[in-house]
Amino acid sequence: MKVENITIIGLGLIGGSFALALKKANCTARITGFGRHEQSLQKGVDLNVIDQFTLDPKEAVREADMIFFAVPVGAMTESLNQIKPFLDPRTIITDAGSSKLSVINSVRTVFGEIPENFVAGHPIAGKEQSGVEAACPELYQGQRVILTPTKETNPDALNTTRNLWQKTGANVSEMRPDYHDEVLAATSHLPHLLAYGLVNMLNEHHELGDVFQYTAGGFRDFTRIASSDATMWRDISLHNKDAIIKWIDNYQEELEHLKHLLDQENGEALHQLFSEAKLARDTHILKI
Amino acid sequence: MKVENITIIGLGLIGGSFALALKKANCTARITGFGRHEQSLQKGVDLNVIDQFTLDPKEAVREADMIFFAVPVGAMTESLNQIKPFLDPRTIITDAGSSKLSVINSVRTVFGEIPENFVAGHPIAGKEQSGVEAACPELYQGQRVILTPTKETNPDALNTTRNLWQKTGANVSEMRPDYHDEVLAATSHLPHLLAYGLVNMLNEHHELGDVFQYTAGGFRDFTRIASSDATMWRDISLHNKDAIIKWIDNYQEELEHLKHLLDQENGEALHQLFSEAKLARDTHILKI
Repeated sequence: MKVENITIIGLGLIGGSFALALKKANCTARITGFGRHEQSLQKGVDLNVIDQFTLDPKEAVREADMIFFAVPVGAMTESLNQIKPFLDPRTIITDAGSSKLSVINSVRTVFGEIPENFVAGHPIAGKEQSGVEAACPELYQGQRVILTPTKETNPDALNTTRNLWQKTGANVSEMRPDYHDEVLAATSHLPHLLAYGLVNMLNEHHELGDVFQYTAGGFRDFTRIASSDATMWRDISLHNKDAIIKWIDNYQEELEHLKHLLDQENGEALHQLFSEAKLARDTHILKI
Repeated sequence: MKVENITIIGLGLIGGSFALALKKANCTARITGFGRHEQSLQKGVDLNVIDQFTLDPKEAVREADMIFFAVPVGAMTESLNQIKPFLDPRTIITDAGSSKLSVINSVRTVFGEIPENFVAGHPIAGKEQSGVEAACPELYQGQRVILTPTKETNPDALNTTRNLWQKTGANVSEMRPDYHDEVLAATSHLPHLLAYGLVNMLNEHHELGDVFQYTAGGFRDFTRIASSDATMWRDISLHNKDAIIKWIDNYQEELEHLKHLLDQENGEALHQLFSEAKLARDTHILKI
């Protein structure tokens, strides 16, 4: 299927980088931005991220072959409702939300069913900066994009979405939505909460004074994700809360275990745990 | 006081970078390496990190104006015992251990008192690579070095040690040893355990499959410190365990609070917590 017109709803880092990556790949689709923030949309045009923008939902969707939602997951239902009256059923709808069951639920709520041209997706890429001015054409290069089709998903819509993501340089996988939410809770949502929690704790223990001045590169890297956008992470946290709470529980058990080893001065077991973690990370992460 | 001969005990990243930084600052002191691993010491000479090495403790210390211990904190007592019989009381002893009360206790145990020329120190700098081949002259440039003198410490020994660290480009502070251990438990030791714990947990939950393939830059940065040397971190954990356990407890409370906010779907409070953490980090960390 030929995609000649793409509309990006919620133009920021994720949607802007998608647009830039397609342009860099010589994709000739005309890219329209739609959203509430005219200033961001105008900046998107000024920076040549998008070709045009509109504040009118009808104009935004009527000629679109694909609508790409890059809004916080908490805004999905409202955004879908806004465009629903003007939507051509042949238009592919996709998204970039970090939780997939909740987005699929939003779609079901708004449409009463899952439209066959809806393809849920999640690019596992990002940086702590947000906004269209942070967009870059290489954001998805070599990164993982997960699509989570349901039984309703039309294979052509899935193929078209996969092909577009591949043009951005991404490595596209497919996964069940519930498995996606479980894995991402463990590998991304939990670490974000851990980083926010650590910075918050240090910031609140005033008896220590300004402890941040005694931190070095390790702390800076560990907490980098605590500089991520608060609205986006509030939404992700709320929309995948069951999986996240489960992983916080697992993690608390891990911390209890570490505390027990410290308390027992079990140097051998601590050394083994640290060595195995180091080996796992060096094996799986440094290679990527 | 003129320092013409420096002996580094335990030549790795920390000791090697100290030596390289002094050479880069045109410090003419002759630098001798001493330790158990002849291969590392020979590599130190081959890489022009040190001027010479010896495996004989008597030779290592007899002409030294300063002895710099860069061994894991768990090896301090044994290392001090090894050189004690040959030590000139005028020789300054300093160290780079990440916990200070335990090092001061080792010194007291070995000498029966704190010698006036002992100056406890801790450079807050490092990287996950270890070994003399990872040493670099810029490791301490602009980084914090904390000295934790006691009431016994001779001001001349303190000044000489401070001056040498300043030559490496470090920003030198002084602090009480117990406050040092408290602050470092919170800002460095706890984050290391959190990172080791997360990688270990994901590695052990086999039902998820190979989850590491679905991680991105955020996870890579968050867990970078889990690639740190296991022996060094076993020692630090055991030698500062009381302060670390206290901070694990505080952190468990923070996680309970986060879990409660999720469970209550309190988006406003989550947003506030994330925003404040982001603000604290952006204010205090990005500036450094």
